[in-house]
Formats: sequence, C-alpha cells, structure tokens
Amino acid sequence: MVKAAILGATGYAGAELVRLLSGHPEAELVYPASHSYAGKRFSDIYPGMKGVCDMVLREDDINSAAEEADVVFMSLPAGLASALVTKDVLDKAVVIDLGADFRLHDRNVYQEWYRTEHHSPDLLKQAVYGLPEIHREAIKGRRLIANPGCYTTCSIMTLYPLLKNSLVETDSIIIDAKSGTSGAGRGEKLTSLFCEVNESIKPYGVASHRHTPEIEQELSEAAGKGIVLQFTPHLVPMNRGILSVCYAHLAAGVTEDDVKKAYSMYDGEPFVRMTDTLPETRFVKGTNLVDISYRIDRRTGNIIAMGAIDNLVKGAAGQAVQNMNIAFGLEETEGLPKGAGCPF
Amino acid sequence: MVKAAILGATGYAGAELVRLLSGHPEAELVYPASHSYAGKRFSDIYPGMKGVCDMVLREDDINSAAEEADVVFMSLPAGLASALVTKDVLDKAVVIDLGADFRLHDRNVYQEWYRTEHHSPDLLKQAVYGLPEIHREAIKGRRLIANPGCYTTCSIMTLYPLLKNSLVETDSIIIDAKSGTSGAGRGEKLTSLFCEVNESIKPYGVASHRHTPEIEQELSEAAGKGIVLQFTPHLVPMNRGILSVCYAHLAAGVTEDDVKKAYSMYDGEPFVRMTDTLPETRFVKGTNLVDISYRIDRRTGNIIAMGAIDNLVKGAAGQAVQNMNIAFGLEETEGLPKGAGCPF
Amino acid sequence: MVKAAILGATGYAGAELVRLLSGHPEAELVYPASHSYAGKRFSDIYPGMKGVCDMVLREDDINSAAEEADVVFMSLPAGLASALVTKDVLDKAVVIDLGADFRLHDRNVYQEWYRTEHHSPDLLKQAVYGLPEIHREAIKGRRLIANPGCYTTCSIMTLYPLLKNSLVETDSIIIDAKSGTSGAGRGEKLTSLFCEVNESIKPYGVASHRHTPEIEQELSEAAGKGIVLQFTPHLVPMNRGILSVCYAHLAAGVTEDDVKKAYSMYDGEPFVRMTDTLPETRFVKGTNLVDISYRIDRRTGNIIAMGAIDNLVKGAAGQAVQNMNIAFGLEETEGLPKGAGCPF
Amino acid sequence: MVKAAILGATGYAGAELVRLLSGHPEAELVYPASHSYAGKRFSDIYPGMKGVCDMVLREDDINSAAEEADVVFMSLPAGLASALVTKDVLDKAVVIDLGADFRLHDRNVYQEWYRTEHHSPDLLKQAVYGLPEIHREAIKGRRLIANPGCYTTCSIMTLYPLLKNSLVETDSIIIDAKSGTSGAGRGEKLTSLFCEVNESIKPYGVASHRHTPEIEQELSEAAGKGIVLQFTPHLVPMNRGILSVCYAHLAAGVTEDDVKKAYSMYDGEPFVRMTDTLPETRFVKGTNLVDISYRIDRRTGNIIAMGAIDNLVKGAAGQAVQNMNIAFGLEETEGLPKGAGCPF
Repeated sequence: MVKAAILGATGYAGAELVRLLSGHPEAELVYPASHSYAGKRFSDIYPGMKGVCDMVLREDDINSAAEEADVVFMSLPAGLASALVTKDVLDKAVVIDLGADFRLHDRNVYQEWYRTEHHSPDLLKQAVYGLPEIHREAIKGRRLIANPGCYTTCSIMTLYPLLKNSLVETDSIIIDAKSGTSGAGRGEKLTSLFCEVNESIKPYGVASHRHTPEIEQELSEAAGKGIVLQFTPHLVPMNRGILSVCYAHLAAGVTEDDVKKAYSMYDGEPFVRMTDTLPETRFVKGTNLVDISYRIDRRTGNIIAMGAIDNLVKGAAGQAVQNMNIAFGLEETEGLPKGAGCPF
Repeated sequence: MVKAAILGATGYAGAELVRLLSGHPEAELVYPASHSYAGKRFSDIYPGMKGVCDMVLREDDINSAAEEADVVFMSLPAGLASALVTKDVLDKAVVIDLGADFRLHDRNVYQEWYRTEHHSPDLLKQAVYGLPEIHREAIKGRRLIANPGCYTTCSIMTLYPLLKNSLVETDSIIIDAKSGTSGAGRGEKLTSLFCEVNESIKPYGVASHRHTPEIEQELSEAAGKGIVLQFTPHLVPMNRGILSVCYAHLAAGVTEDDVKKAYSMYDGEPFVRMTDTLPETRFVKGTNLVDISYRIDRRTGNIIAMGAIDNLVKGAAGQAVQNMNIAFGLEETEGLPKGAGCPF
Repeated sequence: MVKAAILGATGYAGAELVRLLSGHPEAELVYPASHSYAGKRFSDIYPGMKGVCDMVLREDDINSAAEEADVVFMSLPAGLASALVTKDVLDKAVVIDLGADFRLHDRNVYQEWYRTEHHSPDLLKQAVYGLPEIHREAIKGRRLIANPGCYTTCSIMTLYPLLKNSLVETDSIIIDAKSGTSGAGRGEKLTSLFCEVNESIKPYGVASHRHTPEIEQELSEAAGKGIVLQFTPHLVPMNRGILSVCYAHLAAGVTEDDVKKAYSMYDGEPFVRMTDTLPETRFVKGTNLVDISYRIDRRTGNIIAMGAIDNLVKGAAGQAVQNMNIAFGLEETEGLPKGAGCPF
Repeated sequence: MVKAAILGATGYAGAELVRLLSGHPEAELVYPASHSYAGKRFSDIYPGMKGVCDMVLREDDINSAAEEADVVFMSLPAGLASALVTKDVLDKAVVIDLGADFRLHDRNVYQEWYRTEHHSPDLLKQAVYGLPEIHREAIKGRRLIANPGCYTTCSIMTLYPLLKNSLVETDSIIIDAKSGTSGAGRGEKLTSLFCEVNESIKPYGVASHRHTPEIEQELSEAAGKGIVLQFTPHLVPMNRGILSVCYAHLAAGVTEDDVKKAYSMYDGEPFVRMTDTLPETRFVKGTNLVDISYRIDRRTGNIIAMGAIDNLVKGAAGQAVQNMNIAFGLEETEGLPKGAGCPF
C-alpha cells in the first residue's frame, strides 16, 4: 500500500486526486493538506465526498508530509513548489508536482514565461517530465516527477508522432486549444463567475500562454531541433475537457501511410485511443484517456491532428496517479477510469 | 460471475448500465441489445466506451437473452415489457425492469395513468417494487423486480420516514421536483434540443405526471392509508440529477427529535447520506447515493424535506445493479460509485 | 428628456439599467456611478456596451447625482440606501431604489430579516412599493419608489388575484421558486463560480430567505389578513430568469370560472401574458413581461399557479424603468422589450 | 413602410428575422410563412413572441409572397431557393436569400461542395454577395441579395483587411472557428440534443465544411489571386455566437502600423468594433456587431486575427435586415441592436 500525501488538496486538481486515490486499490491517502482549509474535514469542502473522505485537512507542510507518506503530490501555485522541495524531502518521499516548477529544463525559460524566481535550479536535473507515453522508462525509479500541464499533455501527445518522424514542416505548427472552466481553478475571480463564462467562448493568453514553452520543449526534443510554435487557448462554458486542434503543413512526399505508421507508436498504450471519428471532450470525461484523430487535407497540404482529454484527469490528477503507479512499480492503469459515461 | 443481458442498451439508462456493469467485479455483460442499433458495436453508438465495451448489439429478443444470461435488464418504452415478460422467461432469468410496467400493483391505476394496456396482469403479483432501502427483504430471491422511477426513488426516499412515523398531515404533501435533461431520454424530440432546453427552466406534466401514482402507492403503504399528493416535475438545463423538494404540514405535537428519529431508519444504509447542509445534485452526480436533508419551519408549521439523486444511477441503472446485487446475494454496494467528483 | 443617474451602475441590475436607458427614447443617462470602478469607462467594465455607453463612471455620490439628474436609480447592498436617501435628495430628484431598504413598511420586520439597521425609518411612509400592476396609482407623483425584488415580483403577481378574491386557503401557500445565477450578483464568491453552479441545482435560504416578508406583506394586503407562507428559492445553472411555482389549496366551492375571472384583472396589462401553456423562463428572457399560467388539480384540491419573469428586467431594471415612466408621466411601456427571441 | 415576407419563418434564423422586423420602425411583416407550421400562429411556435407576432403562418409560396411584399426573405434548406426564385419573382420583389444558393459565383463550385444541383445558374450573375462592409455599393438597387453565411461573415470580415493589403502569405491561412448550437438549426437531430451537446466541445466538417469556398471566394477577390485555406468549425455548448480565430504568416517587412492601417478600413462602420481586448461572443450577443481584435507574434511571425459575431444576427437575420435597409434606401442601422447586455 503506497501512502500518499497531497499538498493543495482542495483545489480542483487536488480534489480530483483525492477522489482517484480513494478508489485506488494499492494506494492510501494519509495526509491531505490545504493551506486555506486546514483543520476542516475534506468532505466539508467537497460534500460530494462525504463518507468517502472525511479526513481532517492538515497544513501544507512538506516535511511532515514526506515523513508520513511514500509519495507527496503537490498542487500549488507556480513558484511555491520550487521553494519547498529539498533533497531531504526527496530522500524521504517521491514528489509528484502537478505545478509547473519542474517541467521546464531551462531555468531561464521558466523565469521568463512565469515571471517568478525558480528557487531550486539544482533540482531541475533530477526531475523527469512525467508524460508516461513518451518518458515511461525515465520515470521509473525517479524521485521528482514533473506532472505535465493540461493543455500540454493534450497537445504534445497529439503532435508528437508527427514531429518524431519528421512528417511536418516544423515552422508551421499552430495549436488552437479549448478548455473547460475547471482549468481556471477554484479561485474567486470575476472571470470565473458563472455569469461571466456561461454562454460565451473567448480566446485568452494569445501569443503569451505559459504552456507554450513546455510544448515547445517536448516537441523540440522529438524533432531533434528547436521548434517555435503558435499556441492559443480558449475558455469554453463547460466544467471539464481539453480539445487541442493542431495544424501543420505536411513535409514534401509524406503519405497517409507514413502518418498512420507514426501514430502506431501508441498501439498498446492503455490510455490512448486512435479514433476514426473526430474527438469530442465528452468521450473522455472522467477518464485518463487521450482520444486522437487526424485528417489530411490535400487541398491545403495540411494535416489537422486533434486530441481530447479530461483536464483534471489525464491533464492533472489521473496522470499524477499514472506516474505514481509507474514510480512504485504498480500496474500502470490501476485506479484510473477508462470508459466515459454519456451524458455526464 | 453473474451473466447479464440488457434490452434497450443504447438509451441513456441502458448505456449507464453498460458502464456500471463493465466495472462490476462480479457481473459480466453477455447480451447487450438494441432494436435501433442491432448489428453495430456498442462503442459505435457510445464512443466514450471504446475499448471498454465494443460488443456487437443484438436484437431485443427477450427469450434469447434469458437463455444466455442470468439476469435480464429491460429499459424499454412503457407497455413493451409487460408484453414481453413471461413465466418462461422468469424461469430462466431474473428480470429487472427499468420501465414502469411492473411498478404499480393495480393494473387499473397503470392503465389510467399510462393510457396503454397492461399485457401481463397475472405477473404483477410476482413483481416486487425494487427500492432496496424499503423493500430489501422482499427483493431477495424474487424473479421479477420493478426498478423504481427516477423522480419516485428520490421523492419516496425523502418522504418515507415522515409517513411511516405519522409525522405529517397526509393531505398536505407537495413535491416540487427538478430533473436534468437525460431524464427525457435520447429520442430526437424538439423539446430535447439543446437550444430549446438551455438557459431556461420549465414545469411540465403539472397535476398529471405518471410518477404520481407510484409515489402515492409507496407512501400510502408507509402511512397505512391512502395518500393523494401534488407532484410537479421541472426540466433543468443540466445533464443529470434530480432534486425533490417536499413540503408537508407537521402533525400536531411533532418535535424535531421525532423527525430526527424517523430519519434514523437510514442509519447504516450504504447509499443514503443525511446531510446538515442542503442537498445539491452535483454532490451525488455519478453515484448511487441519495442525499437527504430537512428543515422545520415553525412559522408555517411545515417541514421541508429535500432529496437529491443522479437520475441515471440511483434513479435507474445504479439501483438496477443494486437490485441485482441483492437478488444474487452479492455485496449490495458492489460496482456502485459512492463519491462524487466536483466539478463533473 | 428625463435625466437619469444610477448608483451602483456596474452590478448586473445596474448594468441592465444602463442598457435599457440607452435605448429609451425619453430618458438620458447623465450620471452613471460605481464605487468600485469610478474613473473607468462603463464600456471598460461591460465591453458589450462599447460604442453605446462609453461614459466615465462617477463616484456613488447621491447628492451630486440628485443635483444633475431628475431620477436617481440606486442598486446598492442592503442598508446603504436607507443611509443615503434624505429629504433633501428627494426634493431634488425622484429616487427609485432597486434594493430592499424601502420595500417593507415595518422597520422591525426589515431589521429582523435583514439583520442590519434601517437608517431612515421616517422615510418609509413616503415610499411606495413599486409594483405597477398593483400600485400604479400610488406610484404616480411619488418621490421615493421601492422597486420590488425579483422573486417577489414574480411570486406576488402570480398569486395576487387568488388572494385578492379569497379563492385559496390563506394558510396553505407554498412558493417554490427558481432563479438564474445573475440573481446572485457580480460579487467574487466561491458559490457563484461557473464550476460550482454549472450542472447542478440547489435550494438555498430554506425557511429564511429575505424575500419572504416582502411577499407576505403584499399578499396580506391583498387578502385583508395576515398571511404567513412558505418560500423556497433555488439556484439554476442559467444566466437569467425566475420561475415561481405557487401552490395553494382552493377555498371551498371555488370554480374554474372564479379563478379565470380573478386573473382577468390583468386584462389589458401591457406586461402580463396569461398563457394556456406552462411558462418557461426563456419565453420572457430579455423582456419586461410576466407570463402566468395555472392548473387546478381536482384530485388534491390545489391550484398550481406559475409565473415567469426575467430577474434582471421585470425583476429589477425593467420594472425600475416602468416605474420611472409612470412617475414622469411617460408612456408606461416606453423603452421596454416585449418579445423574446429564442434561443437567446 | 417596407412590406416583408419570410419563407422559412420558424427556423431559428427566420424567427430571429420576425423578432427584428417586429421592432423595425420602417418595415412591416406581412407574410410569415412556414412549410411545417402553415396555419398555426407564429406565437404558437415561438411563445416568447406572443403579443408581438400572433400572425397566422402561410404556406412557403414565393409567388404569393412576392405579390404581397416588397421584400422576400428566404431561409430554406440548400437547393430550394435556386428552384424557387425566378425573374418574375424578382420583378415583383427584392429577394434576400439567407441560404447558400446564390452566394457562390461559380455554379460548379456550388455543386461540388453542396452536392446538389443549382436550378437557376442564369440568376447567379444578378445576385450580389450581401456583405455590406465590403460590397455596400453593389447591394444598392440590386433585386437578388445572397446573405452571407454565419462562419463566413465572421471569418471574411476578420481577414479581409489583411488580404486586401497583401499583409500575409496567402497560402498560410488557417481559420479555427467556433459556433453556438443554434447554428445547427431547429431540426430534430440526435447530434443537436441537449445531452449530446452540453458539457463538450467538438470539431466537425474538418477539411470539408461548405463555408470554405465562400470564404475563399471573397478573400481571393480581396487578394486579387486564388486563395486556398484551412477552415475548421467547432460546436460549442451555448445558444449563440461565432468566434473566428484566424492565423496567417505575416508577409516580409509588414509592421504593426501596416496592420493597423489596414483595419482602419472599418473606421466609421456602424457595426464593426475594433477592440484592444480579445473578443468574446457574449459581447456581441443579440447585436449586429462584429468585434475584431488581433495580435502579432514576433516569435512565430504570425498574426492572429480574431472576430466575434452573433450567428443569428450579423450571421443571418440582422445582416439580412441590414441588406434590406441598404436595398430600400433606409438608414442602414435601423432596427438593429448595437449594445449587448451581460449576462444574457
């Protein structure tokens, strides 16, 4: 039984982690923590979990957490994790950080996009980018796992086979992504109010969203060359889901078979479904799945590759559990839903 | 391993049953059937279930189903089940009918409210009203189980303790209930279109909804006298959920303690949560739970008892699985979710 | 041309008032004010109004407002209006208060339900309850108009004819009301976040909502006797709309004709539509209309009377404009929409 | 007073036209027609319009319509209009077709994308593409006006200044567009059901949507050379609104000033708002406005130009009224809303 701690357990990603761990046969939540709600029961904050997790929330104390748990999940604002994680902590527990602090290999890139200081640059080398379908082997045995972002998981997985196999012109990539509102978190912000979100769609962070360098880093590695791309996120009036619609110009001579073969890298992956029909976010809601489909347009010479995930599961808590499963040698799919009810 | 058939597997309730059974450790779906989609894969109709249930849909043939399965779930339009179920079928399999045909003990009441003929009145006596928290013992060993309606499950369970203990004036009951849109089914009706439902709320079936006699039947049994009550359903722009807000005038001399004691009948029930805070449908979404709370208003002399369920789970497929578990001597909670993620 | 000021112009009700006044042929907004956003343009806060109202927001200064305007609309938190309005202000301008401070005739009732002090009890006698369909004559020529609440407008108008004509048992009234989320205002509250409201319905303020005494006051006047009633509001995942479903036991001997005749008091009312079909909030969205329908249930002896309004229009800004029109001798319907587009 | 007929008055676009005409000071609806609902009152189908338009619906007879009206609006399925419009009809009335039949100048392109025969190719030359901001002069005095599509209006207006001024590489254009569900019409289709649309986003018609050639036609004219582009529509869970996010690679040497100057072509346009902030569909809801904004990304060399409209107003009925105003020499803005209430 893996003992788990969660710092930031009452944010949407943290709470989803509580839900998933509560149904996990090989893990046990022993230390749920929340700075805002320490001292209250988790189910006072999330009444839907009454009877399932009534534990009292602790303070966000990483050292106590690492003492009591085998794995410490962190779901905290940017900049906080890098200040909290130490070698001492990593000696005691595996750390899976759902935030951004350990995702970018280059501290300068981090500081430029996040406009905050990185407090533990020396630990960056020890961190692995926790996207199992791409870095599975590197995750095994690692003590510090940087859980990827939601947009990034979806976008990287959708485009990776094309870049890895040099099938597209690397300077032509455009990612138009759409997210449900839980991605904006549980903060009491005007822009997150029901009446400000409902019945509308909007782009935001155009040419400036922080997930851009993370996608570029991973796709550059895949391509073996530096990639600069266009990433545009949108807010959609729904609770959950991310859809990444990715455009790229096919390289000269690329055939449909080449593309098909490239995506065959996902054959056998338990959480990837290549679909003939176009993805819809509802078909992955509540699951750890990534649905991917593509179309080749001979009129324009473009490929349109589309991926869908649940931002709170594969885009956050589910992938964190998947990483935990790998890190602790458990069955990788343990505790992770694979079929989506509809309507949900 | 209990072998299960589902007739009507591609309606919303049927599909939810597929989802629940696919995660049930002691049951196996062997015969998914659909009149409209026979010959297609289930996951062609519900792509969210790709990889989990890719079985080919059979015809809605109850005899074949009963041959191959231990339990036959039926989720069919009113009037059809009573024409299909026979003694021969019941000899071969337990039948759990998610429709209305076997819920009302009195054939005449059925025919009056449903305005269709009942084809097997002789079987009515063999049927049990499958509300486990009230008729658990009677369900055990029964071959024909009438799974209760969604509004009725929620309303009966919310009011039952008050009637059973004579705490309210029996001619004062008003149930104002609200349902998500999946309750209207998957039929291609104008009134179910997104643009006709979204951004609005409406009452319907005022003083005439078919769930009325079902609620009256069960509450009359509880009270030991005939009860006539007011039931008003509403359509809410959300996928799932039922909220029953029930009003009744307290009988003379009834104290808060009397009420509390009455609801203690649910102590230990795995799927009932008495809550101090008021119920919200999101807190039971995706689960087999009933959340119940009440307020006593000394100004008016009324008690307001409120219950919430997920109409597709406790109001349909989940309760059907609960009934199966009881009928086959399995752990009653097997395969049934108890904690709700939020937001979902 | 009536010159208008609005204190609290950037709340949802205040902004709706800006919108309605901007299309009003006989009124002109000269003083839009907002404590939070003073100094900014109105269209910076509400970009949908860019090009229509780009005025710079002033401070919420009632004296300046009354100097510059003929009518001062106030849309402020409870307790503030009663501290601001003075005889001097009323000498200079007509005040239409969209808040609760001048709605209840009895200061003690106000203080009991609102748990705040009333600062100008002497002005209560000068105030008129601004529900035109009931108090039209009294509104004319008045300097202080208390614009009714949203739930109350809808509930009172739906029930008034029944009480006025002694058609129902006065101790049997139950109002089960449902509101869109704009009714909760633009405050940055956790319970107003998209992800906390969407895909759920909940009751709140059971047996304690502040609109209760306001409804009781007006219906008591209608009945000529003190009425105590049950009022339960609900939050619905939609932007706008209120539905009041009102239950009462018919008095002995009351016929359908009696009821019909009672509601004929609304014949000729420009903003009331008696409908055969049941009301849906979308059919009044964006308009100043009240749609009312009823059903008599001979099984239970109850009448179910149902009304629908747009909470921001007839429930707030639209009714305020209607009151202004009356107070200033304009055509009562001027500037007020009467037809609802669908879907909207 | 311009007398108007509407064929197809009970679809969403037709009904919006009824609503707009009912508030138009210089036009009068004299002939509302509907094949499905002929003989019923318009307000029986759209109860929100009770009291505003209670006219009895006529048959979709274009000859009678043209006899009785000065202008005939047609909102019919593809292929029908081209079969109905004749020279005789055009002699009697101005025809404004909200469908696609007269938008494409090239009959072959029409037949290829719509896969239906065009029945009056000889009339194509007489038709004008009714996008006033681009073809205003050509619209004046014309008898046959092809009202543009919803996606196309939004996309063309957003990109036109860039193409007209040769600011972007013409083979690099990608349009990622999102639409509310009313765009799918009022047909009783499974894919339009609330539970199939709600809480999800999906792309559709990838590399094959019929609005593609219409956008290409207009932008090719602007650029003075043939343009082939990528167009991807999405379905969003909201009633109304279109957002077009358009990507193109800037031509060498293009400056921010060049772009600004290009968009200055819209200075003085009553229905175009260039905005600093990014567009959101709610800010144009219910109006005939187009909100446009852009960002230049020097990292990628791309310009991201974004436009938002209300698909039923500027994308259909509102633009049709605008065209009528122009064709009949009325004030162009007459009867058309310019400020959006929020939330709506």
